[in-house]
Amino acid sequence: MAVYTEVIDADLAAFLADYDLGRVLALKGIAEGVENSNYLLHVEAGYFILTLYEKRVDERNLPFFLGLMEHLAARGLNCPQPVRNRSGGALGRLAGRPAAIVTFLEGIWRSRPNAKSCAALGEALGRLHRAGADFAGSRANALGLSAWPVLFDQVRARADEVHPGVAALIEKELAFLETSWPADLPQGVIHADLFPDNVLFLGEKISGLIDFYFACADDLAFDLAICLNAWCFEPDCSFNITKAMGLFNAYERIRALKAEEIEALPILVRGAALRFALTRLVDWLNVPAGALVHPKDPLEYIRKLQFHQKVGNARELGLLR
Amino acid sequence: MAVYTEVIDADLAAFLADYDLGRVLALKGIAEGVENSNYLLHVEAGYFILTLYEKRVDERNLPFFLGLMEHLAARGLNCPQPVRNRSGGALGRLAGRPAAIVTFLEGIWRSRPNAKSCAALGEALGRLHRAGADFAGSRANALGLSAWPVLFDQVRARADEVHPGVAALIEKELAFLETSWPADLPQGVIHADLFPDNVLFLGEKISGLIDFYFACADDLAFDLAICLNAWCFEPDCSFNITKAMGLFNAYERIRALKAEEIEALPILVRGAALRFALTRLVDWLNVPAGALVHPKDPLEYIRKLQFHQKVGNARELGLLR
Repeated sequence: MAVYTEVIDADLAAFLADYDLGRVLALKGIAEGVENSNYLLHVEAGYFILTLYEKRVDERNLPFFLGLMEHLAARGLNCPQPVRNRSGGALGRLAGRPAAIVTFLEGIWRSRPNAKSCAALGEALGRLHRAGADFAGSRANALGLSAWPVLFDQVRARADEVHPGVAALIEKELAFLETSWPADLPQGVIHADLFPDNVLFLGEKISGLIDFYFACADDLAFDLAICLNAWCFEPDCSFNITKAMGLFNAYERIRALKAEEIEALPILVRGAALRFALTRLVDWLNVPAGALVHPKDPLEYIRKLQFHQKVGNARELGLLR
Repeated sequence: MAVYTEVIDADLAAFLADYDLGRVLALKGIAEGVENSNYLLHVEAGYFILTLYEKRVDERNLPFFLGLMEHLAARGLNCPQPVRNRSGGALGRLAGRPAAIVTFLEGIWRSRPNAKSCAALGEALGRLHRAGADFAGSRANALGLSAWPVLFDQVRARADEVHPGVAALIEKELAFLETSWPADLPQGVIHADLFPDNVLFLGEKISGLIDFYFACADDLAFDLAICLNAWCFEPDCSFNITKAMGLFNAYERIRALKAEEIEALPILVRGAALRFALTRLVDWLNVPAGALVHPKDPLEYIRKLQFHQKVGNARELGLLR
């Protein structure tokens, strides 16, 4: 949520000389994305998003992300579509950073999604998984099971500053997940961060999915677990099973879950909760004093994890077939 | 350069119910302005800027700022034009803050203005001063001569941390300006912050002036002094008299300076340099450790002040008639 790299007019003009987009009409830095600098770019050809990839993003992953968006958009998914320059490339350099232009999507994210929104999400997620099935690129999940002990090591000593008992709870959960994590589930491209602020709506319909910079190859049902945690809890962390039913039903109309995915679901939602609890703890404990950024509350995800620890099967999560 | 107040979809819908702008198509927080939260708002009626006024802005001044923009726009000046709601008001409340919608201006600011850009600025400034002449509102300059000792008191003890000798230099300059400041110069509405990032260009032409939140009633020639300092020095703080000549010539084609303004110019540019040196010092010395904001360099304006201290008359500043 910041602009880290400033783009000046002369550099922008040089960068755009490689594109067939006409002259620049406006450029505004936008507060979107936490890893990159994003600008709303208005050119004669229309409105676009200009992204400069900052140091936290591994440049070697950019062809995967851009290739994936292009692949999905070509299959009719509403996602940002990379704009190719005259030499056919989607990636250039601007102000010393790797940079790309993607299409601008209409819509506004819903801060309080209802059961209908969750059903719309389920359908969109199913379509995303189907559209990604024949994508050739591959990228391991850098924030999957094997990364969690590494993240925990970074916060173990201070985790109880956030709430007493958090360190012990995570330690026990990690041990449980390491022995219980399912193997051999159907894999494919997952978004891995499909929170409400990455899903744009026009009225009740989804107009676009954005921010594919955590996308990777992983268990498809893990994506569903991430969405369940992000969309189906109320602000007080109570679980809304009606929303979850809407999510699952709509997803399964596009892609039916296999028996082993349904069986694994109670474990996957625990892992998905722990993954966000851990990255939020890292951010929470590393905010410079007086900084203007407000890190997200890690306790929200600890509470969701505690809910899931009591769940016996997928039916209790709203998967009622 | 931040979004301080988050606007959620439900609150935005309630706010927009008072306007005839159609439904929301997109909302993006933009990194513009240091005092307020700004959003690019795309509705069926077009593109607009939605501003939420933060605590540093005195609400009692908002009718002045909005009324001024409306007055100037009605006289053909390209500036943001407040959009009135159904009850005829330009100011509402959103997310607990006073909020207004203004038109979105095309253009991009020039990071390295040349002599032609300075001439375009001079003409635009002249037109601004003429268009503001019959504006009924009034607001004293909160950052004028009488405010400088107050600002200095806030930084006096630590000013030499920025560079040895700065405190003594400012103290002496303040004493000089208090006895030398001109009285009875022609007054009117000034922008008071017309730096390059507040002037939008399309090609060589100015397409808009923005950010009127320092505007006030003051000596018109003081606005010219602020512009001279902001536009006619090179990055190494050397003075480019060709740019200044372009600025003055173009300004005078719209509004001729009076003899007393020309005589006062060498004092006004010193005051204008000191005003920005002081506010930059305050910001520089009050940045929280580790914050993501980069305050502007106060020494840039100390150097400009030192240049002006050697100037004898307006001719040496490029006012050659």
